[in-house]
Amino acid sequence: MTRRPRAVVVVTGSELVRGERTDRNGPFLAGEALRYGLEPARITIVGDAPAELEAALREALKADACLVSGGLGPTHDDRTVELLARAAGMELVVDEALEREIESISRAVAERLRRPYADFAPGVTKQARRPVSAVSIGLAGTAPGLVFRAPTGCVVVVLPGPPGELRRLWPNAVASEPMRELLDGTRPPGRRVLRLFGVSESAVARALEGAGGDGEGVEATICAREFEIHVDLMVEPGAEARAEALDLALAERLEQWLFARDERRVEELVLSLAAARGLRLATAESCTGGMVAARLTDVPGSSASFLGGIVAYADDVKRTELGVPDELLAEHGAVSAEAAAAMAEGARERLGADVAVAVTGIAGPGGGTPEKPVGLVYLHVAGPDGSLRRVLDLPGEREQIRMRATVTALHLLRALLLGSHDEAVQRPRLA
Amino acid sequence: MTRRPRAVVVVTGSELVRGERTDRNGPFLAGEALRYGLEPARITIVGDAPAELEAALREALKADACLVSGGLGPTHDDRTVELLARAAGMELVVDEALEREIESISRAVAERLRRPYADFAPGVTKQARRPVSAVSIGLAGTAPGLVFRAPTGCVVVVLPGPPGELRRLWPNAVASEPMRELLDGTRPPGRRVLRLFGVSESAVARALEGAGGDGEGVEATICAREFEIHVDLMVEPGAEARAEALDLALAERLEQWLFARDERRVEELVLSLAAARGLRLATAESCTGGMVAARLTDVPGSSASFLGGIVAYADDVKRTELGVPDELLAEHGAVSAEAAAAMAEGARERLGADVAVAVTGIAGPGGGTPEKPVGLVYLHVAGPDGSLRRVLDLPGEREQIRMRATVTALHLLRALLLGSHDEAVQRPRLA
Repeated sequence: MTRRPRAVVVVTGSELVRGERTDRNGPFLAGEALRYGLEPARITIVGDAPAELEAALREALKADACLVSGGLGPTHDDRTVELLARAAGMELVVDEALEREIESISRAVAERLRRPYADFAPGVTKQARRPVSAVSIGLAGTAPGLVFRAPTGCVVVVLPGPPGELRRLWPNAVASEPMRELLDGTRPPGRRVLRLFGVSESAVARALEGAGGDGEGVEATICAREFEIHVDLMVEPGAEARAEALDLALAERLEQWLFARDERRVEELVLSLAAARGLRLATAESCTGGMVAARLTDVPGSSASFLGGIVAYADDVKRTELGVPDELLAEHGAVSAEAAAAMAEGARERLGADVAVAVTGIAGPGGGTPEKPVGLVYLHVAGPDGSLRRVLDLPGEREQIRMRATVTALHLLRALLLGSHDEAVQRPRLA
Repeated sequence: MTRRPRAVVVVTGSELVRGERTDRNGPFLAGEALRYGLEPARITIVGDAPAELEAALREALKADACLVSGGLGPTHDDRTVELLARAAGMELVVDEALEREIESISRAVAERLRRPYADFAPGVTKQARRPVSAVSIGLAGTAPGLVFRAPTGCVVVVLPGPPGELRRLWPNAVASEPMRELLDGTRPPGRRVLRLFGVSESAVARALEGAGGDGEGVEATICAREFEIHVDLMVEPGAEARAEALDLALAERLEQWLFARDERRVEELVLSLAAARGLRLATAESCTGGMVAARLTDVPGSSASFLGGIVAYADDVKRTELGVPDELLAEHGAVSAEAAAAMAEGARERLGADVAVAVTGIAGPGGGTPEKPVGLVYLHVAGPDGSLRRVLDLPGEREQIRMRATVTALHLLRALLLGSHDEAVQRPRLA
């Protein structure tokens, strides 16, 4: 087992280190580092105070790769490049070609804003400065991404803070000379993924133990994510047979909950199943208030199978828009298996859909009773081949109850589209 | 201006440092530190490799406060307490009272799982170990939270990784003797918030400059968040008058875009306005696919004002459920100001609502044409006092276009509920 090159991610932003915004760049860069065969050792989030930022960069330069995001703007408190050069002991030079490139963009901006170019000139020169051996990997607005090798041997990648821009420039960093040299010496680990629904994290941990456990070049991570359990097997070169055996033993033990072998979200799986069978989908939501529809329509091209939905928050809307009978609501209440079934059938009929999913429950914090407590949720999926129903008794707060009800609704849709009639297959168990 | 005590947050978790899951504890602890008058200097995310974790803890112990989350479980790769003791040069002891407390919980778990207690015993002793002067601030499952003062003088708080448990134990940490001693010497900074919609980040930066800029005990942060701009003024003790003057000058310059002075989300503002006026709300969504309804129903108690909505993704659903006329769709298309107006009126009528908001647009990546490109979104809000409409030409990708359309829809609702008939007030400008 060879040691993988160590990567450190440094993210800078005052609003990030103060907890006012959640960083997305650190997890992205760490995940990419892993994928290319580096070992993400640390993510450091730091503000723009020069001493703090320089100290973080100085430590990061001890790694084999240092991936930095943010602090590339034109103003005086954007100090990443200057402090990197100082921490690495490298000279800072103005790149004249880069300066001309940034100038032409800034002139266009000045013209559009009807402001004198002189306002922009100092920022242009500032943004064209780079450590002496660094090369630009492209501009994000007027900020260049940079790659260079520090005197410590560390390969340094500098990327802009806005997540979209960072992701756009990242492939250029990977393709750069210093990164290619670093990655040439590594073999990315293999990876196997098992995704499970309806089983607890601790039951999966016991199954892993029973299957022989990890080790010997295979590292297993069990991770609860959005009411699903993801098992990741990271496989070092040479341990493929061991990984295959562990994977098979695990899959056998967890067969009834295993639903995917890749990273596609459950709404994508639902939409491909529906498209493959030519079935049109609809939703009828009470306590999830549109979240199931929102997740389905988050997928590009969802209009091929998804027709629409009714958010029936008030009982009147359940009656008028979904045709749930007055007597049913009076007898069983709006949070009941009967109401969920009527809502699903109503959505199919009103929207002309083949398959509809309905959710009704008590998300809290108010509205619970001893008979119908907060966390009680009824789900119903109806389609041409039959129906599936589920009742959940969810712990947690409003946000979590709604999220878990949404995920379960999507899994129930998936199960029905797969033609499952075995209700046990889809019964969620809590940790 | 007194120096605030420096706080470092260390978050441990292999799935976090690999980017497989986004950390929520770091931002929470940093935000809390700030609120209590500490200066959050760094958030470090690290895995469970002992050398990496120990190095991160060793650095953190140089701060005035070190807030640690995760790695408190019963198994051998949960090493936070052991490595903290080593990094701080403190003896590790078994706390017998704590051991008995953890044992009684573990015996109950063993019984419920019908497994021998012997399986649990080693974990119990492990979890009862603490640096010699540490005190328990309560258990999360079988993991104790700890607080102690390290020989460096650093106040160390150790909390469990699950975010709910961490938040539950945090107040006990704040109330502990070592933390009270540290906080006694500090005065939390004052804070003023301006929230703006419809103005660019750079225009706000220019307004700040024109208002005299920050400094002299007032620190301004301008932050674009969810298509809004948040200006935070952090005010050191003694700089209150300066902060007041800056705040007034800023508010005057930015008056037409200023919508809030607190942290409540726009959907909360919409629901309180609706409740105050006794108006019932509905939604009619195409490209946002339920996101507006989902945000409104995310607020506890939203059922007091929100009736429901129609997700009209397919044109057929716009016709049948919202009564948008065939001829209108044929003449203007489903993505048009006319369709948005008809959708809003349809939702009011069908759902019996006083006020309805409609969204129709092209979220991409497919479906754009030269006349109606990706990012074109029409919004319409109709109520008893009149209507407001907006057309957006949004840059970015599907997710961002949908998010921005959703936020604009909520702001348009807010403007109508406020009785605004000045359309200019709500015209979003991009950065």
